[in-house]
Amino acid sequence: MPKVKCTIAYDGSHFFGYQIQPDKRTVQGELESALQKIHKKNSIRVHASGRTDTGVHAKGQTIHFESDLKLSSESWTRALNALLPDDLYVHQSEIVPDQFHARFDVVEKEYRYFVLNREERDIFRRKYIYHYPYSLDIEKIERACKYLIGTHDFTTFSSARATVKGDKIRTLFEVSCRSHGEELEFVFRGSGFLYNMVRILVGTLLSVGQGKIEPNDIITLLEAKDRSIAGKTAPAEGLYLWRVGY
Amino acid sequence: MPKVKCTIAYDGSHFFGYQIQPDKRTVQGELESALQKIHKKNSIRVHASGRTDTGVHAKGQTIHFESDLKLSSESWTRALNALLPDDLYVHQSEIVPDQFHARFDVVEKEYRYFVLNREERDIFRRKYIYHYPYSLDIEKIERACKYLIGTHDFTTFSSARATVKGDKIRTLFEVSCRSHGEELEFVFRGSGFLYNMVRILVGTLLSVGQGKIEPNDIITLLEAKDRSIAGKTAPAEGLYLWRVGY
Repeated sequence: MPKVKCTIAYDGSHFFGYQIQPDKRTVQGELESALQKIHKKNSIRVHASGRTDTGVHAKGQTIHFESDLKLSSESWTRALNALLPDDLYVHQSEIVPDQFHARFDVVEKEYRYFVLNREERDIFRRKYIYHYPYSLDIEKIERACKYLIGTHDFTTFSSARATVKGDKIRTLFEVSCRSHGEELEFVFRGSGFLYNMVRILVGTLLSVGQGKIEPNDIITLLEAKDRSIAGKTAPAEGLYLWRVGY
Repeated sequence: MPKVKCTIAYDGSHFFGYQIQPDKRTVQGELESALQKIHKKNSIRVHASGRTDTGVHAKGQTIHFESDLKLSSESWTRALNALLPDDLYVHQSEIVPDQFHARFDVVEKEYRYFVLNREERDIFRRKYIYHYPYSLDIEKIERACKYLIGTHDFTTFSSARATVKGDKIRTLFEVSCRSHGEELEFVFRGSGFLYNMVRILVGTLLSVGQGKIEPNDIITLLEAKDRSIAGKTAPAEGLYLWRVGY
């Protein structure tokens, strides 16, 4: 059966996260319901690179599904976009070899986190950027970012609610913070991420920016393997699953 | 009684327009309900520079109200923002002379209209910019804009549903269209506007951009005084009440 890979974007504001749940509006639920219409009521299972939480956005989430229909990649994109709601969009489809898997074949993931660092709120972006009105020392944040790059045990920076099997060692290839006027853009690129990891890292880096933690305290935090000593979990609205690499 | 003038912004997406209506969520309704809380259940009437329709945004709407409370302008801003919902924001408050009126004293108004001119939709801005995927000749639009500047009878460009008393002669000081990459920004600055006038002007200017109407056809359209021959009414999501001048 042909296998289709799609790169999708969604505005997480009105979804109860990615994963399908009974009686909740979810990204997976909307995708499967559109595919069911295309397949005349046959249900089709969709596999994503991973879940995203309520309110978290995606610019480049990746999914795959199998279908007995023989459509071109352009037709898949058009057919899905015609049926999907206006906060979920297929940017590209591709017919992929049978052995491809959207989750198991992930080589790297990139998340970005946006912060509006000024006193006044921006009501037009209240669901798309985290409003943080306190003054920040960006140079300190940049220095703290460097301590996170590489292979570490990220227990300190993962939710205590996480139920991941196996260790909490992950490799981050890039951790950076750029400032564009009043906006901060954090980039996290790595082999894998633990539950809430990016949001806890951002919360901690903002504490560094406020001077509550020193940049090199990151080393001690990593070594302690204790969630309770890291910063707050930054809210969902600033977070975007940006790209998935295979 | 002290009179307070406020410059406010709102995201029109979840409001049934500005004007208060029973059982509908409106901007005026939210403002008056916040003021009622501040005044211990006494109802306070709010006057705006004018209405805006469902889905239309404001960056600089202006309102006034009278109050027997003696608060500083900063306290008014803070008190209101503490009580208003997160899609309605007071940027500035000012204690004004008794004779000030938010509607009758308007000298000029500025509206802006934003168009996303590319093939792909941007789901994150679907409520904040009008997606227009057809290719446009910006130079033609710019030429057409010039014909609209000045004092004209704008009957052709006002909704047939309009119930304005008096004539439909208005003066536009500025009509322009700038392109920023894939985005178009229209600016309309004038002494006053008729119902749906900006949206019909934008619809017509986009027809010019598509080559369906020539720039100098604007002259004939104005002279005809006939709504049925102008372009479509562009949708609400691209429109912002930008500034009110007194």
